[in-house]
Amino acid sequence: MAQLQANWIWYPGDFEVWLHWHVSLRRQERGVTLPPVWRLDRPFSSVTFRKLFELEKDENINIGVEGEYDLVVDGQRLYTGRDKLCLGPGRHEIIISVFSETVVPAIWVQGQSLVSDNSWKVRAYYGLDATQGQNLDDSDNWRNAGSWNFTDPQYPPSQFRLPTTPLAPLSTKPLDNGWLVDFGRETFGYVQLHGLKGAGEVKFYYGETIEEALSIENCETLDTCLLNEAHAPDYTLPVARAFRYIYCVIGGQIRFDRVSALYEYLPLPEPASFKCSDERLNEIWTTAEYTLRLNTREFMLDGIKRDRWVWSGDAIQSFLMNYYSFFDAPVVRRTLLALRGKDPIATHLNLIMDYSFYWFIGFYDYYLYTGDLTFITENYKQMYTLLEFCLNRRNGNGLMEKKSGDWVFIDWGEMDNEGEVSFEQILLCRSLEIMAMFAKLNGFATDAARFDDLATGLREQIINLFWDSQAGGLAHNRRAGKLSHHITRYPNIFALLFGYLNKTQLAEVKQKVLLNPAVQPITTPYMRFYELAALCETGQHSFVLEEIKAYWGGMLDLGATTFWEEYKPEATGAEHYSMYGRPFGKSLCHAWGASPIYLLGKYFLGVVPLTPGFETYQVAPNLGGLNWLSGSVPMPAGKLEIYVDKQEVRLKTPAKGGLLYLRSAQFPYCEPGQFRPVGFGAYELPLNEANTQYRITYKALE
Amino acid sequence: MAQLQANWIWYPGDFEVWLHWHVSLRRQERGVTLPPVWRLDRPFSSVTFRKLFELEKDENINIGVEGEYDLVVDGQRLYTGRDKLCLGPGRHEIIISVFSETVVPAIWVQGQSLVSDNSWKVRAYYGLDATQGQNLDDSDNWRNAGSWNFTDPQYPPSQFRLPTTPLAPLSTKPLDNGWLVDFGRETFGYVQLHGLKGAGEVKFYYGETIEEALSIENCETLDTCLLNEAHAPDYTLPVARAFRYIYCVIGGQIRFDRVSALYEYLPLPEPASFKCSDERLNEIWTTAEYTLRLNTREFMLDGIKRDRWVWSGDAIQSFLMNYYSFFDAPVVRRTLLALRGKDPIATHLNLIMDYSFYWFIGFYDYYLYTGDLTFITENYKQMYTLLEFCLNRRNGNGLMEKKSGDWVFIDWGEMDNEGEVSFEQILLCRSLEIMAMFAKLNGFATDAARFDDLATGLREQIINLFWDSQAGGLAHNRRAGKLSHHITRYPNIFALLFGYLNKTQLAEVKQKVLLNPAVQPITTPYMRFYELAALCETGQHSFVLEEIKAYWGGMLDLGATTFWEEYKPEATGAEHYSMYGRPFGKSLCHAWGASPIYLLGKYFLGVVPLTPGFETYQVAPNLGGLNWLSGSVPMPAGKLEIYVDKQEVRLKTPAKGGLLYLRSAQFPYCEPGQFRPVGFGAYELPLNEANTQYRITYKALE
Repeated sequence: MAQLQANWIWYPGDFEVWLHWHVSLRRQERGVTLPPVWRLDRPFSSVTFRKLFELEKDENINIGVEGEYDLVVDGQRLYTGRDKLCLGPGRHEIIISVFSETVVPAIWVQGQSLVSDNSWKVRAYYGLDATQGQNLDDSDNWRNAGSWNFTDPQYPPSQFRLPTTPLAPLSTKPLDNGWLVDFGRETFGYVQLHGLKGAGEVKFYYGETIEEALSIENCETLDTCLLNEAHAPDYTLPVARAFRYIYCVIGGQIRFDRVSALYEYLPLPEPASFKCSDERLNEIWTTAEYTLRLNTREFMLDGIKRDRWVWSGDAIQSFLMNYYSFFDAPVVRRTLLALRGKDPIATHLNLIMDYSFYWFIGFYDYYLYTGDLTFITENYKQMYTLLEFCLNRRNGNGLMEKKSGDWVFIDWGEMDNEGEVSFEQILLCRSLEIMAMFAKLNGFATDAARFDDLATGLREQIINLFWDSQAGGLAHNRRAGKLSHHITRYPNIFALLFGYLNKTQLAEVKQKVLLNPAVQPITTPYMRFYELAALCETGQHSFVLEEIKAYWGGMLDLGATTFWEEYKPEATGAEHYSMYGRPFGKSLCHAWGASPIYLLGKYFLGVVPLTPGFETYQVAPNLGGLNWLSGSVPMPAGKLEIYVDKQEVRLKTPAKGGLLYLRSAQFPYCEPGQFRPVGFGAYELPLNEANTQYRITYKALE
Repeated sequence: MAQLQANWIWYPGDFEVWLHWHVSLRRQERGVTLPPVWRLDRPFSSVTFRKLFELEKDENINIGVEGEYDLVVDGQRLYTGRDKLCLGPGRHEIIISVFSETVVPAIWVQGQSLVSDNSWKVRAYYGLDATQGQNLDDSDNWRNAGSWNFTDPQYPPSQFRLPTTPLAPLSTKPLDNGWLVDFGRETFGYVQLHGLKGAGEVKFYYGETIEEALSIENCETLDTCLLNEAHAPDYTLPVARAFRYIYCVIGGQIRFDRVSALYEYLPLPEPASFKCSDERLNEIWTTAEYTLRLNTREFMLDGIKRDRWVWSGDAIQSFLMNYYSFFDAPVVRRTLLALRGKDPIATHLNLIMDYSFYWFIGFYDYYLYTGDLTFITENYKQMYTLLEFCLNRRNGNGLMEKKSGDWVFIDWGEMDNEGEVSFEQILLCRSLEIMAMFAKLNGFATDAARFDDLATGLREQIINLFWDSQAGGLAHNRRAGKLSHHITRYPNIFALLFGYLNKTQLAEVKQKVLLNPAVQPITTPYMRFYELAALCETGQHSFVLEEIKAYWGGMLDLGATTFWEEYKPEATGAEHYSMYGRPFGKSLCHAWGASPIYLLGKYFLGVVPLTPGFETYQVAPNLGGLNWLSGSVPMPAGKLEIYVDKQEVRLKTPAKGGLLYLRSAQFPYCEPGQFRPVGFGAYELPLNEANTQYRITYKALE
């Protein structure tokens, strides 16, 4: 029997909470650290691990622990020899109580048949059922241990650091009493000085643009490095920063030969790909992938320069982009756990009402794309308590309405978010639907029925209260029972995406809201994400492609090497870089800027899971006016590869269960396989063969 | 204007939780640290302080912070000059967001009129109202800051350590390859070696008894100190221990001149006093005071040798003893806050059902003796949520019944604690009464009415369900609706003390339970505390004095220098020291052993508050057969001094509002003041003069 591999294990979520604590506190503004405005939770400082097991023969067991610990084997406390046990055949029980003030209490146990893994139980006396105390007994306190990929006893969780690789700048030019260094594109890492001589001070002014690096007074991030004579010839700054340009200013007699960086990154799976007949689109896809890559780190961050915080609204978009690029499931799980933090829940996630609801949607998408029900089950109680928190904050009409301390965000744009905001009711309704589904999957019939009922009632209420039949869309909000008649894109987009509109309403929303330039436009890639998805849902593929080329292409025209937090085409010059009242306040490498990855993968390559984990899925490629497109889309079993032009489709899938959908002016021919007609000019091909090259000839119907 | 004194401030309870974390983890058993079995909470790692204030003129303000911080003054973030501000006249706002992984986020702000104190607000987004989310808004998140006596900017909370003072042993004798050191009585501190020469190892085996110190294999605590040549001539061990004897065993060529200790202690107010005509009682009082003193430290500990943990049941007894000795209110507050810890509440305090209820009683006693309503008000929500937790765990009959993971303790003694245990219902009922009172005091009429109703119903239910009229007492428990008919002292004592028995029931309990040797006796000073108090309540003073002399005197006869965790007169030799299956498992300096302080102060010196903070109080001295007794009892205003013999009472009180109660064969004469008769042979004197010597002549009626 091959030896089983032990993993460092901990209380579920605690490594993520610990890492989140550290990552969240890396935000610096001109040398001052800004802690997040929400509560920052920490791992439990004292937990108990337990394992009941049976050995067939003598086994030598090595034990590694992060923290101090008390070890009880078969009811006996051990005072010595606690890192190596030898146990004989039969039933045994190991109990390890671990505590630490700073690291995550964690253990690593390696025997031959006994190894530390998720089957170990761990207890922290943590009342997730505090709202339902009557149900809580000791068995509720024992959870399955959490783990990741820490198999090396010498590399415990507290040692976790992202890897780095050397990165040379594109150019280094003298400027005043220093150097201007250009890395050619936005990047992230630790600056290094080489060939240092003498003593003195070097100041580093970082810029996502050259303007920012040269703005000593206003650049967002800076570092100072003070060295006396007793330094090594090379020096690495201790904190990683985002930059394309660095202006290094020298004070004193210090000199150095050159500046480079250690690029810091999360190792990611080989990404999906996208190519098409439009070079501008290809460049957009590549830039989007790079933008997402830079923001996909310990967690899905919002942006790499400024906050470096984990925001629920930003994260769920990153998740979707991730499913169409790296398909890295662990970063999704880490991010969801970090966002939730610990109980008691006293505020919405990130203090934002919308962001609590997005978190549920993040779980739904995770389940849909990965099919990982275990993760849902393990975290059902955490979802339940957050949903209860939200439900308890409804007003007398059963609707979400902001209370003091709540932030109703939706988007950066002019809007009145007082009173009952339709957008928030739609998100609550979707959260209820998702939780009803998860309750069913876990066999919690009472919960399922309750959430189903609440969702059904709320769906009706949303239309009854907010549908403005004159305007042909959902109004933005109601104050004191009075409808505002202000139509915004947000609730209409989401009602459309969630299927809350009937056919008539859908048609009205499309014409009178989505395609109506009189309705206040969206200025962030954040909400453009959903807007363009909604337009694709209504078949506006060509229109969407043009929009992508204009909006994201507009940033490229301005020299963007990664996509931005906000883009207003009408701005000029350095105006583009200002936000939050600061000249370089805007993040120019913002995860939500990378949404073309998702749009192109889902709506143009057309690959969508129909049931969790792609057990069944659809491939409905759409050229959107392009001559050809090709690429790959990840699935749990591997990547689906597809090429599409107006006469031919070539496809190879790693898993059965797919359904290729084509619109064709002639009956498509396939080898292997057989199309069937499904309506006028529409044909379907069941993809019953994995890892087989499908070659289809057809005649595209635009 | 004298400059106001700034205090280090923090999120309320966080210093106490932080200190509790560290203190709780000092338990070691033969070199292995045993973490507490309950959840150990930690302070918030990130909190925001806020102060709105108005200055009359320019003010220089110094700022000290424990942790990293972000400082915003009048809406502007400061990047430099953050430790010294100068603000002009007018309204201002200071917001300081502080975070730290290990220390309690705390600030110290010293201006002329502006100082950091409890009027500052602090927020951690911590949902005490999570069970009532609908009521929570941002204002609920801001609490008044906590503080203690940290006024020195150079001595922030994280530097807190108890002071020490040198202590020489009584004797040091050579023994085998080492020394046996005797400090003459139980003590606590850091061992020191003086005049060290050479390298080697010294092992220290600690003993509360000589038997324990000499039992290398079984003593509960030990230390090893390994020194190479490069040591200073004196060495202090890093961890403080409890001991009377230390057996130092030398390995290698190391030599030293002598052993001493640094006695570690909490500075306490000058204690109360007690003297009487019985020297044995005087010795008992002195030994009890010393026992309590050793256990009154960062918190009220259970014992100094073994757990050094904070247990709710032990603590509330210590509180009462403290009111009759040191009257140190801060240690009571620290202990109550540490016991409660953080939300969510997932288990009973210390995992013990009784101990959750005792915590409420601790607050009641604190309020009664100190009159400090602010502390009650500041912690009302913490009490409310714990009570809700308990109420949510009632069974279908509305009664407490243990669930898996609950420990129904009551006392070390044989008993069946399955099913509905009457003792627990009595404690719940008392907790409800207390909370009804606190709710009223804070103007929460709805809560008050609800708790009142629940208490009234439960009082009736207790008698209806558990009163065994044949046995003349409350039965211990009911299982599956069937009364056990097993009579134990515990429920009867508490029902009596809480006034839940009518006159007939009271008389029956006294004769058929309390004074009935056939009812299983109590073996711990812990429950003897309540038993003897109950006997005093029924007027058995002489009997109680004899019991005290026999029980506590019995320990003195065995050489005790402090009182024990458990005492079984029938045991012999070293049997006395064993407990928990370990030969020296018993704690010989256990706080609950010190109860004579309370009994003698309350029932013999007879000083009892009638209304909170001694606004009114009773002095009802009782000789209990002694020729004379004298002593002092602390009150918030100072100490009341009293001398009593059979003909004379001398009394000086620091506060008006008292009522002296005497039983006399003749009408007592007093100067100043005038007695009034209050029944046959009973007289009352209103004590209307503070700080005046009352001299009373009377004729004691035994």
